[in-house]
Amino acid sequence: MQLTLTAISGILLIKNGDNLSNIIWDALLTNQIQLIDNDIFVITQKVVSKAEGRLVYLSNVQVSKQAKEISKTSNKDPRLIELILRESKEILRVTENHIIVEHRLGFVCANAGIDHSNVSSEHGNPDECFLLLPENPDLSAQKIKKALEEKSGKKIGILIIDSQGRAWRNGIIGTAIGVAGLPALIDLRGKEDLFGFKLRITQVAAADELASAASLLMGQADEKRPVVHVRGFPYHLRDSSIRELNRPKEQDLFR
Amino acid sequence: MQLTLTAISGILLIKNGDNLSNIIWDALLTNQIQLIDNDIFVITQKVVSKAEGRLVYLSNVQVSKQAKEISKTSNKDPRLIELILRESKEILRVTENHIIVEHRLGFVCANAGIDHSNVSSEHGNPDECFLLLPENPDLSAQKIKKALEEKSGKKIGILIIDSQGRAWRNGIIGTAIGVAGLPALIDLRGKEDLFGFKLRITQVAAADELASAASLLMGQADEKRPVVHVRGFPYHLRDSSIRELNRPKEQDLFR
Repeated sequence: MQLTLTAISGILLIKNGDNLSNIIWDALLTNQIQLIDNDIFVITQKVVSKAEGRLVYLSNVQVSKQAKEISKTSNKDPRLIELILRESKEILRVTENHIIVEHRLGFVCANAGIDHSNVSSEHGNPDECFLLLPENPDLSAQKIKKALEEKSGKKIGILIIDSQGRAWRNGIIGTAIGVAGLPALIDLRGKEDLFGFKLRITQVAAADELASAASLLMGQADEKRPVVHVRGFPYHLRDSSIRELNRPKEQDLFR
Repeated sequence: MQLTLTAISGILLIKNGDNLSNIIWDALLTNQIQLIDNDIFVITQKVVSKAEGRLVYLSNVQVSKQAKEISKTSNKDPRLIELILRESKEILRVTENHIIVEHRLGFVCANAGIDHSNVSSEHGNPDECFLLLPENPDLSAQKIKKALEEKSGKKIGILIIDSQGRAWRNGIIGTAIGVAGLPALIDLRGKEDLFGFKLRITQVAAADELASAASLLMGQADEKRPVVHVRGFPYHLRDSSIRELNRPKEQDLFR
């Protein structure tokens, strides 16, 4: 049983309007990868967001009263705080350096996933240029999946990931934020172990595990490897949504 | 750039006193794997704990006053609660089904990592048989590393993992609990991105990412694949400790 992850080379800086599925398809040729059923592509959110035009300039942001209030506790630019608020359902914690939120997409993350590193300004002041997460990463993944399946004639999965921090543990890890065609969560409820006991562990966040695996190859200091090809994913492909991974607030012990 | 994970076949049920490094070494032959420098083995804690004799029988456990108190809130057997307390520094949350603790090893997890599934009783009632995490997983990893390096003449890494839940997200993922010879945390502080900006993300939990990757191949419903061989880990091997991943309590916003 083997899992092979290959960073696709030759995918350069992505800009607003670029067609990611065409770019990935073309890169497969030079990377000598021939798709087979059950292959998966893991794609960093940054290139998806850029292709979808999710760049925002702080100079265009009007600061609300709530953002001003939060800027008393946070070191962040009030206009950035305003962007974070607009992308969030709820603020969980504010410290000097971190604003932890429930993102409008339903997961908990820092700064609503809004990023500044490796964001080149397409116009205007690069210091004031920030990148939002894709509007709907599940839908972004579905579109790329559909296009690549049409080109290849194979049944594949697409996973869009971000690098996120965790409670309790140092360091960020690759984390699923959008999924199409592969299971986000594997449900083992009712299954028995080797000795006939019901399993203690009943749900496996397979998409998050794959996100972390692919993240190892993408690196953080550049975006030269924004797409990773995966062969040997051990679970059956199926329709899915990132919502499977969001723990409902009322079941969450740590808010 | 490629990362290849291979589940080692033929490693069967492990029992108290088994020599894991010998067992892995012998399995490499039948799996036709020849080690090279920078190869890594990821090993589930369950086989390490079994080899180290960490099975405990509830019938031998004296229940303390604190465990009795907690059993008013929790559905768990008071003797199991007692075991959880003994393996923990601090109780974070108690609900009917979960006891979230800071483990004596410094990380936060459910039920102090004490497991019942796939635990076969070596004597006595199997229903009352539980498996504790290894006494010192970093040390367990170091010993296996040393033995396999002596056999192979190659410089390798060893990662011991468990399946753990997270705040905010459904499902468990493979998580590092012991490490030898590979970096637990990658420090990118001071590094710059493609456009000369200081990176927002400064620390990457590489060992956790690799734990999740390997966990995909191990499955949960059996332990037929407790060891995964890794080739192509993209970071330099170095001495390390799982302590790198434990966020200090005073820096943790979610306790």
